[in-house]
Amino acid sequence: MNSPANFSSKTERLDRALRSGTLGDVAGILADMSPGDVAYLISSSPPDYRSVLLGLLSADQEALVVNELPDELRNATLINREPEALAEIVEQLDDDDVADILQELPDEVTGRVLAIMDEQYRQRLQKVLSFPDDVAGGLMSTDTITIRADLTLDVVLRYLRRHSEIPANTDNLVVVNRNDRFVGLLPIGTVLVSDPAVSVREMMITDQEAINAETSATEVARRFERNDWISAPVVDSTGKLLGRITIDDVVDVIREEADHSLTSLAGLAEEDTFAPVWQSAPRRAIWLGINLITALLASSVINVFQDTIEKVVALAVLMPIVASMGGIAGTQSLTILIRAMAMGQINGRNQLWLVGRESLVGLLNGLLWSGVIAITASLWFGDATLGVIIACAMLINLATAGFAGAGLPLLLRRLQIDPALAGGVLVTTVTDVMGFLAFLGLAALFYG
Amino acid sequence: MNSPANFSSKTERLDRALRSGTLGDVAGILADMSPGDVAYLISSSPPDYRSVLLGLLSADQEALVVNELPDELRNATLINREPEALAEIVEQLDDDDVADILQELPDEVTGRVLAIMDEQYRQRLQKVLSFPDDVAGGLMSTDTITIRADLTLDVVLRYLRRHSEIPANTDNLVVVNRNDRFVGLLPIGTVLVSDPAVSVREMMITDQEAINAETSATEVARRFERNDWISAPVVDSTGKLLGRITIDDVVDVIREEADHSLTSLAGLAEEDTFAPVWQSAPRRAIWLGINLITALLASSVINVFQDTIEKVVALAVLMPIVASMGGIAGTQSLTILIRAMAMGQINGRNQLWLVGRESLVGLLNGLLWSGVIAITASLWFGDATLGVIIACAMLINLATAGFAGAGLPLLLRRLQIDPALAGGVLVTTVTDVMGFLAFLGLAALFYG
Repeated sequence: MNSPANFSSKTERLDRALRSGTLGDVAGILADMSPGDVAYLISSSPPDYRSVLLGLLSADQEALVVNELPDELRNATLINREPEALAEIVEQLDDDDVADILQELPDEVTGRVLAIMDEQYRQRLQKVLSFPDDVAGGLMSTDTITIRADLTLDVVLRYLRRHSEIPANTDNLVVVNRNDRFVGLLPIGTVLVSDPAVSVREMMITDQEAINAETSATEVARRFERNDWISAPVVDSTGKLLGRITIDDVVDVIREEADHSLTSLAGLAEEDTFAPVWQSAPRRAIWLGINLITALLASSVINVFQDTIEKVVALAVLMPIVASMGGIAGTQSLTILIRAMAMGQINGRNQLWLVGRESLVGLLNGLLWSGVIAITASLWFGDATLGVIIACAMLINLATAGFAGAGLPLLLRRLQIDPALAGGVLVTTVTDVMGFLAFLGLAALFYG
Repeated sequence: MNSPANFSSKTERLDRALRSGTLGDVAGILADMSPGDVAYLISSSPPDYRSVLLGLLSADQEALVVNELPDELRNATLINREPEALAEIVEQLDDDDVADILQELPDEVTGRVLAIMDEQYRQRLQKVLSFPDDVAGGLMSTDTITIRADLTLDVVLRYLRRHSEIPANTDNLVVVNRNDRFVGLLPIGTVLVSDPAVSVREMMITDQEAINAETSATEVARRFERNDWISAPVVDSTGKLLGRITIDDVVDVIREEADHSLTSLAGLAEEDTFAPVWQSAPRRAIWLGINLITALLASSVINVFQDTIEKVVALAVLMPIVASMGGIAGTQSLTILIRAMAMGQINGRNQLWLVGRESLVGLLNGLLWSGVIAITASLWFGDATLGVIIACAMLINLATAGFAGAGLPLLLRRLQIDPALAGGVLVTTVTDVMGFLAFLGLAALFYG
């Protein structure tokens, strides 16, 4: 009954079977698992295992598994297939997933795959393909059951019974008028519990507004989260129904956005956890190179104060502390802002308040820790002046860190530069430069 | 029709109404908004606005809005209410949400609230309250429609019609035997489209296993994501049905986990974006204090080499570069590991492979950038020896960064210490110490 145990016992059996090379056993175990579980197993395997596992799947299972793989791995798996094989795979998927896949393939391949499909399906698909995959239109599926408001629930029930199945994640039937304009939603639960004689119009809900097809994926995700939706209708600017978005695709958006904030702040491009060395190394090299340039900038500040350091070598010992504390404080402020931006919480009303709050938090923590470092440095080097200098420098740097950590991402966003990606390097550059400048500059003044 | 525009036009009107102090208008606008939207508005407002907005809600709306607030804000809002007022608020919510709220309040308050509730509701609630909120049992709602396998769909339909409404997010009816053991699921869509004469047994699905109540919330979230579930039944160790988990609560888990990785890596405790200064400052102070200690550790390494620095002051200019590059590379590896752990991708089969891959990536990028810095440093200070020293130090530090960035989180997890929280400070301590040690140590050897 306990299914996690069940899943992990399956992976253990799978491990043994893989190691002993009895691929027939492996295939048998895989055939028993859900597509999501198989995809998870494949994506958490090093590259060599992956192709072995994929090769053991039946054609039907493969399509579903491929669809559940992370984007990059999915595209790498599909890119070399023949158009006929591709068409066979994608025909089993929801149209928003098919659109995702086709959008990432070379245009020529996409054209050949589309040419194989039947006319009706191709038209539906082209509707989704006409939107980029980061707006509502690109997330939607066109597989929607629509009804008219003037029907009785009894007629709706009989109409539904003519379907062999209802599209996945259908919690509402979409009510449209004769011009296909969105009118309201009829929850399936309502159909089940209500008197069959009443009309759709009487029972439908009209307070869930439709999503415009041009709405960004981020905004779609926020609205699903805020309203606990399972699905939502998508309309064009005239209110005409185009399709609907379901929660499973929204969960993917939420996961991808969270992932983007996390990896961007660390200076990572989107990266498959199990990418081989030759893929990972060049991607990370770029960020290290940018950091090298900014580190050289900070070094050039130190370079100005060579004479002072030669006189008081303790400065060289202590200066990384000032820079490091600024870096941490700046990253804290930056992370708060990046998170708030990702959640859509930043607006004209609160951004100045946030910059002020962060600066003040930096200043207060600066007061606290500059006191501690003042005493530590004075005792360590038996030099009270040194204690005063480092305390002042740290205070200046932590207040700067709060101000820059909150202000820079806001500025970057206004310049339409991704604050998560560019913010990290900019903020630490500011705190490094300011840290060295304040500490060594004050020292140059005091020690002459 | 375009609802985001609609939402933002509402917030603009709200802004104007708040500024002009016409609270009646504000209340009118709020009454028109969904609870999720109001909660979002409140949580993205600075503290002063919040209580004003909350005070304008009707009692019914307030309960729903309070439930959608972030945990900390929700608890702060409720903590000072009278038990009677609390009971009235929580009675309108799902039991997993009520359990969440009651678990966070002082035991005495919880007891008084429970005492006011009716017997049947209290018993249901205590079932959920008996589990911590980070396992399946604590996420579940007991509001579940159960049916027997030997009924016909026609009987099921008539049974459903006796309900006035179906619990939110009901995509499946749960099939149990006479001992209340979980048997299978009957999708609502199946009830709608199938011949009413067939039995539940013929139409139910049995390949979605139930979740054990002790399963961790993380594992629950992963299984929902992998299998695109809307809801899943929860059972005890004997297979007895306890309740069900719905996707809206899983989305919250996913969001919270992603948030935890992001904020922990930056050394932030869970923090409300709009917390006042006196709340933010002390929370962040701790992490800055820990960083101060590790920075002093790195400084004590530099301290050993005072003589060498006095001889070649360029060392002081260049040494932050080596440490900084190591810090970035280490954080990159750490982030990859933290993300993989959060996604449950790490297992015995792949962890050594990952440590190897990260070390190799570090080494390769070390080779690349140490070449660049060797040339830069040699030309800058007209000293080829200095170029060789910094190149060797950077190579050593970047390989160490990859190894420590991947190895430390794995070690921390084995010691049951949160790798996201402790990993960041540990990895940068390692790269700082190693950076200064390698660079100044080699310099001491070369320059004597």
